[in-house]
Amino acid sequence: MQPSFRKIVIFGVGLIGGSFALALRKAGAVGDVVGFGRSQATLDEAKQLGILDRIGSDVAAEVKDADIVLLATPVAQMADIFVRIAPHLGSQTLVTDGGSTKCDVVAAARAHLGSKVAQFIPGHPIAGAEKSGASAAMADLYQGKKVVLAPLPENPKASVARVRQAWELCGANVMELTPEEHDGVFAAVSHLPHLLSFALVHDLAQRDNKELLLSFAASGFRDFTRIAASSPEMWRDISLANRDALLREVKRYADELYVIHQALQNNDAAKLEEIFSVARAVRSNWTQQ
Amino acid sequence: MQPSFRKIVIFGVGLIGGSFALALRKAGAVGDVVGFGRSQATLDEAKQLGILDRIGSDVAAEVKDADIVLLATPVAQMADIFVRIAPHLGSQTLVTDGGSTKCDVVAAARAHLGSKVAQFIPGHPIAGAEKSGASAAMADLYQGKKVVLAPLPENPKASVARVRQAWELCGANVMELTPEEHDGVFAAVSHLPHLLSFALVHDLAQRDNKELLLSFAASGFRDFTRIAASSPEMWRDISLANRDALLREVKRYADELYVIHQALQNNDAAKLEEIFSVARAVRSNWTQQ
Repeated sequence: MQPSFRKIVIFGVGLIGGSFALALRKAGAVGDVVGFGRSQATLDEAKQLGILDRIGSDVAAEVKDADIVLLATPVAQMADIFVRIAPHLGSQTLVTDGGSTKCDVVAAARAHLGSKVAQFIPGHPIAGAEKSGASAAMADLYQGKKVVLAPLPENPKASVARVRQAWELCGANVMELTPEEHDGVFAAVSHLPHLLSFALVHDLAQRDNKELLLSFAASGFRDFTRIAASSPEMWRDISLANRDALLREVKRYADELYVIHQALQNNDAAKLEEIFSVARAVRSNWTQQ
Repeated sequence: MQPSFRKIVIFGVGLIGGSFALALRKAGAVGDVVGFGRSQATLDEAKQLGILDRIGSDVAAEVKDADIVLLATPVAQMADIFVRIAPHLGSQTLVTDGGSTKCDVVAAARAHLGSKVAQFIPGHPIAGAEKSGASAAMADLYQGKKVVLAPLPENPKASVARVRQAWELCGANVMELTPEEHDGVFAAVSHLPHLLSFALVHDLAQRDNKELLLSFAASGFRDFTRIAASSPEMWRDISLANRDALLREVKRYADELYVIHQALQNNDAAKLEEIFSVARAVRSNWTQQ
């Protein structure tokens, strides 16, 4: 029996790209897996781990007849990759990505893929993991996880369905949002909390008595600041890539903080309790899906 | 052999008060444990669980010859308890508390204990737990945990040492701060993060698309908002009790947020990366003690 995907090409064989390959392999859904990347050591490791069949050497030849090209690099590198692959993309080849932001990637795709942008179906697998790199890749990383596709008006329905099929073969639940919806949602529930957590720790780090302060920090601090140990480079790039939506969120949050400040200033016990109660009810009812 | 503490009296036999009694019992360090509280059901349960030897009925008689009186009620109830015990406190009886804020408790003690304030050694066990109530009490809750004592200038050294001894028998590491230092430290590392977490969830809760937003929230959101499921009443009281220090912290945090907002507004990648890197380094090196 022919596998669903005869050949996939992956740019950036780390946690996201490597797990995509392993999951499709485990599903018996892929023939040839070819990898490109900046680090020869990572590519060698990915080959050794059975993620890749081959390390690619000729982009033009590889993307000509691939079924799917997955861009799983940091978002800031994707424009360059679009430039490299654009002239060589076969007419049957679909391109997708795993970036945490979508409007910026779509803009880069439009700028560099030309009319072939119809072959690009933007995506974002929601599979945060503490680890990164090819060695962290797992066949079941996407099992039961959400993957957002953010299709373009130019995408033929069959092409969207084909990329959806790949992620579903990985075990993921695929949702669709527009790129704008995607960036608004993630600015609110992911990018803003990261910024706020970094901000708290950065503020403490500036103080003369930081050692004393940190010695009394306990489990509330531990949970609140876990995401402040995230990669500075990655979050610099995400923050700038989703700048407009994130600026709106920061402004909105500052307004919320002002309301709480005023309630505290005015000794307004009822207002404070109301705010805390609403938050508690929503947070207690929420369960990670 | 005589136990170290012949008799202790506990006001508020929940997680904090109940665990104090169980820990001293386990250490063989206490004779009689007497409890007072607002809820007869809780007192009955505490007696059944072996936390209490007796449910108290006569405050005057019980606090006259107790070695230690522990106030383990919400902070807002402590002033009333000072009023009730003040006329009857024996000269050898020490009073301590388990409140999350100290300056307000000290002010209440000064107002209501008169010259007997010298017998009051303020305390704060740092043993956050998800659960509350007598049934959650555990003999090893304080094992390896921090307890802050915030002694007053009026406290004889021997009295501070005696309360320290009780907590050390519970397995705790006892530290000393002034009440002002205590409130400043906990405003920064505990009260502010709680406020910020409540604020984020409250802001999301106001939106028309909150269901959509929450459906895409993942592990970063989960950790950041875990403390937004804390008790609204308790955090209303803590916020107001530590209002001055907390207002300073909110103001400081708003300034920090403004700096990040400006860096984002100006596309200042270097500044963002610097802030995130400092935060990450501090958070990665921090370990809960």
